[in-house]
Amino acid sequence: MTFEKLVVGLAGMPGAGKSVVVNVARAGGYGVVVMGDEVREEAKRRGLEPTPENLGRIMLELRRLEGEAVIAKRCVPKILAARENKVIVDGIRSLAEVEEFRQNFQKFTLVAVHAPPETRFRRLFHRQRSDDPKSWDVFHERDMRELSVGLGNAIALADYMIVNEEGLEAAKRKAAEILRRIEAEWMK
Amino acid sequence: MTFEKLVVGLAGMPGAGKSVVVNVARAGGYGVVVMGDEVREEAKRRGLEPTPENLGRIMLELRRLEGEAVIAKRCVPKILAARENKVIVDGIRSLAEVEEFRQNFQKFTLVAVHAPPETRFRRLFHRQRSDDPKSWDVFHERDMRELSVGLGNAIALADYMIVNEEGLEAAKRKAAEILRRIEAEWMK
Repeated sequence: MTFEKLVVGLAGMPGAGKSVVVNVARAGGYGVVVMGDEVREEAKRRGLEPTPENLGRIMLELRRLEGEAVIAKRCVPKILAARENKVIVDGIRSLAEVEEFRQNFQKFTLVAVHAPPETRFRRLFHRQRSDDPKSWDVFHERDMRELSVGLGNAIALADYMIVNEEGLEAAKRKAAEILRRIEAEWMK
Repeated sequence: MTFEKLVVGLAGMPGAGKSVVVNVARAGGYGVVVMGDEVREEAKRRGLEPTPENLGRIMLELRRLEGEAVIAKRCVPKILAARENKVIVDGIRSLAEVEEFRQNFQKFTLVAVHAPPETRFRRLFHRQRSDDPKSWDVFHERDMRELSVGLGNAIALADYMIVNEEGLEAAKRKAAEILRRIEAEWMK
């Protein structure tokens, strides 16, 4: 059995600009489910600080114990509980997760956001959220950790690719256009 | 020691449109080195037909025996032997290969081409080169084989991403523009 909500899965390397797409979607009436929140909530339950190391470790442990699609499985009820009938799921990391969403939602579309590594590093370096990298080595290590769970495969097989390298306004326009195309596609 | 040639590495899933980029580059004065030729030559040396199965098996075997970057290593002398001082290398499949080229060529840039799976399948199905898929299952299997050696990681970390979904002329224009930007970048 599959559910009728329109679900957009979003994949991208750190700093590629996923949050731009999420904000455009939210403004367009989408509910937002953040896959990373599952891991952050798990860290909180265990009384651990949400450092990149702790979050990375918890993610790998959950996957080992409950399978590669564990985070996606935990997000399905959240998507169903959303008031909105369009939901964007931020932070897809593997084809196993994509598969899980496709099994649950007939109207599932995978969107990837891309920016060159140097651009992503510059953005994250200037953003400096608690888990943002202070050096190229730390940045590269995080990239490799993300790829090790299969993020590159999800990006390579995306239904839509947003290239985010021409500034915020261009990215917003592309995101809005792609969401329109996805909605039109499912309306046919 | 690194060499002074400008080298563009090209990565993309089957049917994404790598050949469009190669043709634009060739017309723009680039030498062309096709990584798959290494595997086809190896098949010939062994007296085997160049079926996707044989080529896939040989590629995996070479990688097991001589390391993940074996094909890239074999391409370095070909790049150096090219008359042109700009060379495009078609068919990068892993970060190990990217690393090998970066170690040998200071002016190395990684370009990826993306198209949605459904579009790629339709293109390959209509192309029907000897190794093109006759069904979605065969197509999907080939995608998975390409991803299993790390192609998704190379795509995710590309310096430039060409989205090829608006027809041939648009793809050619984008390819030409990106090659111009790469050349301008290295001229600075």
